[in-house]
Amino acid sequence: VRDPVITFLSDYGLNDEFVGTCHGVIARVCPAARVIDLTHGVPRQDVRAGALVLAAALPYLPVGVHLAVVDPGVGGERRAVAAKLGDGRVLVGPDNGLLSLAATVGGGCVAAVDIGDSPFRLQPVSPTFHGRDIFAPVAARIASGAALSECGSPVDPGGLLTLELPHPEVLDGVLIAHVIYVDAFGNVQLDAGREEMARAGVNPGVEVVISTGAEPRVPVPARYARTFTDVPPAELVIYEDSARRLAIAVNQGAAAAQLGVGSGAEVRISL
Amino acid sequence: VRDPVITFLSDYGLNDEFVGTCHGVIARVCPAARVIDLTHGVPRQDVRAGALVLAAALPYLPVGVHLAVVDPGVGGERRAVAAKLGDGRVLVGPDNGLLSLAATVGGGCVAAVDIGDSPFRLQPVSPTFHGRDIFAPVAARIASGAALSECGSPVDPGGLLTLELPHPEVLDGVLIAHVIYVDAFGNVQLDAGREEMARAGVNPGVEVVISTGAEPRVPVPARYARTFTDVPPAELVIYEDSARRLAIAVNQGAAAAQLGVGSGAEVRISL
Amino acid sequence: VRDPVITFLSDYGLNDEFVGTCHGVIARVCPAARVIDLTHGVPRQDVRAGALVLAAALPYLPVGVHLAVVDPGVGGERRAVAAKLGDGRVLVGPDNGLLSLAATVGGGCVAAVDIGDSPFRLQPVSPTFHGRDIFAPVAARIASGAALSECGSPVDPGGLLTLELPHPEVLDGVLIAHVIYVDAFGNVQLDAGREEMARAGVNPGVEVVISTGAEPRVPVPARYARTFTDVPPAELVIYEDSARRLAIAVNQGAAAAQLGVGSGAEVRISL
Repeated sequence: VRDPVITFLSDYGLNDEFVGTCHGVIARVCPAARVIDLTHGVPRQDVRAGALVLAAALPYLPVGVHLAVVDPGVGGERRAVAAKLGDGRVLVGPDNGLLSLAATVGGGCVAAVDIGDSPFRLQPVSPTFHGRDIFAPVAARIASGAALSECGSPVDPGGLLTLELPHPEVLDGVLIAHVIYVDAFGNVQLDAGREEMARAGVNPGVEVVISTGAEPRVPVPARYARTFTDVPPAELVIYEDSARRLAIAVNQGAAAAQLGVGSGAEVRISL
Repeated sequence: VRDPVITFLSDYGLNDEFVGTCHGVIARVCPAARVIDLTHGVPRQDVRAGALVLAAALPYLPVGVHLAVVDPGVGGERRAVAAKLGDGRVLVGPDNGLLSLAATVGGGCVAAVDIGDSPFRLQPVSPTFHGRDIFAPVAARIASGAALSECGSPVDPGGLLTLELPHPEVLDGVLIAHVIYVDAFGNVQLDAGREEMARAGVNPGVEVVISTGAEPRVPVPARYARTFTDVPPAELVIYEDSARRLAIAVNQGAAAAQLGVGSGAEVRISL
Repeated sequence: VRDPVITFLSDYGLNDEFVGTCHGVIARVCPAARVIDLTHGVPRQDVRAGALVLAAALPYLPVGVHLAVVDPGVGGERRAVAAKLGDGRVLVGPDNGLLSLAATVGGGCVAAVDIGDSPFRLQPVSPTFHGRDIFAPVAARIASGAALSECGSPVDPGGLLTLELPHPEVLDGVLIAHVIYVDAFGNVQLDAGREEMARAGVNPGVEVVISTGAEPRVPVPARYARTFTDVPPAELVIYEDSARRLAIAVNQGAAAAQLGVGSGAEVRISL
């Protein structure tokens, strides 16, 4: 039998001991677990960014327990949940939308429990650190073989909070998309793909113009290509990124800074 | 038998290969060891911060070997030690106070050896990287089952350097506390707890005023509550944090910047 | 039998999920592998820095598969390779010089394959994330026991790209060296060692002067000593660092900022 796998995503960062403490809790409960840190660099309290990262990575992760904590409402009214997916994975985290995109990727939620008062929580529960006191010990118990029903009270698996994301549009040959993520290289990920580009009449290999929401909307040229190195250094390129979304990059540069856009910004692309 | 656990705390950061090199050394000496990185983001050479983090996390870590390296005096006169605690844990690191708070949490030091000339050190020993050449290999040997007495020369277990921390006071209904740690969220941890607040006549649920050491001492209002979300965004809250110390936060903000305080600053709280 | 070890170095940073996704891919292919993160903080696209870090750390790492990804040419013409070394290690990464210094340390390359079209790659291969789709799965297959010949097409083991590094010189009692790496403490590593200092007539324990390439070349005094703590706080010291190269540090300070030098800068040292 393989050792069980727990993956762990959070916005805790690595400067403090929060992540290491959760690892310690897991190791005490389930010494055999292999913990894979997906990332702890999700922008602070950015539930949407965390949800997108978890969903994009999920197909590349072993089937296991997927612990995720981006939790601006910790200690408040939001529920803490563990959710079993159609493909056998179990998600553990706050019920604030963080888990919802991954749940869809994993075949939908087929069973869920509220773990706020789980018998496996560490008491007393700190109102500010549910990662240590609720999420990590429950995830470790599930990895150890505990049934979901032992971990908390059953809740409607269809009733978990879902994220509302913006939708891209095509109007008069213009693709109106939105920035959903900026990575550490400054690459700008959009909520559109190659199909929307085709609907705007734009095919790979051509020159396009990009304009952003900031006034004055000065259109800048870019090339719709395969990868960064298809354009000279310092020039803009639009390409399908590793999550199969359109992204804008600058070869050997940072597109987000050059375009002046961040998460949520509107970006218009046309011939 | 479980695989042995080594936890590892340092101020090396993760931008260089120092941490990974120590992991490599450990894996060569004790391939079965599971290494838990507690954190490597301790502020550079801040022995006190490292000591506080290690002590706060210790109860959540499996009993094992606890490697800690915040070592401004590396290559100088300070001793390198391994110390066995009353609860069976072994601490390994410089004898500069870094281990002293954790030793107390773990039941006190019952045996100690000076490992500066340990037979298990890697030679030649670099005067600037004892983590790699002394601390990591000795920690790994202990995890492999070596007795403390094999690792170095016995020293007085009561003679390890202890840290002097400031003490909070209550004077005329004013709690005079000190900042001992600022985490990456900007939350400000104080050296006082709920008992000192009670002695100052302040009970949970009330409004208080905070003044800091910086002149002019303009008192600012805050709420003494359970957690961040008990106050509106951008407002100050005092609460018991996950290490059971009083802390000051700003809901969805950074208290340290807002108050203009850092480690060591004096903070006064009263009704 | 020991679990196989894979070490992993990159410039991906830890703010995004790139590293965690590669860990997931490895765990799916080779669940028994122990992955040691050497560092993911190599300066972006700095192939030379990555090559130096990997080569310096290699002797401290268990013999295993050494995955390294600093890959400004991803998706372009550069080859992707796996290379077996004389000491039994296998390097996996782009053939852009990144692996070349480590190959020398490990006894030279004795066999190599081009893995760009490896049967073990994940398809479709993203043109921007070969770490996930080519390098990680191939490294994991090798750790699982796959022969190099199964992983790709044989290439000339002597034909891998090698890095050209600057060479230090001694002229008229002046050592002319170059900065090859600046660590996160601001310590400045040079491409010279104690032998070159001796050839310039400088022996340990003496005062020297340092001048840098920036005009006007104002010489600053420094002490040639054993370690930081051999000089008072804020003063410059030249010492043999943990990779046995000359380095310049400021006790409790950052030499790179104080001298105004970065990677590639020329540094002159004399009595």
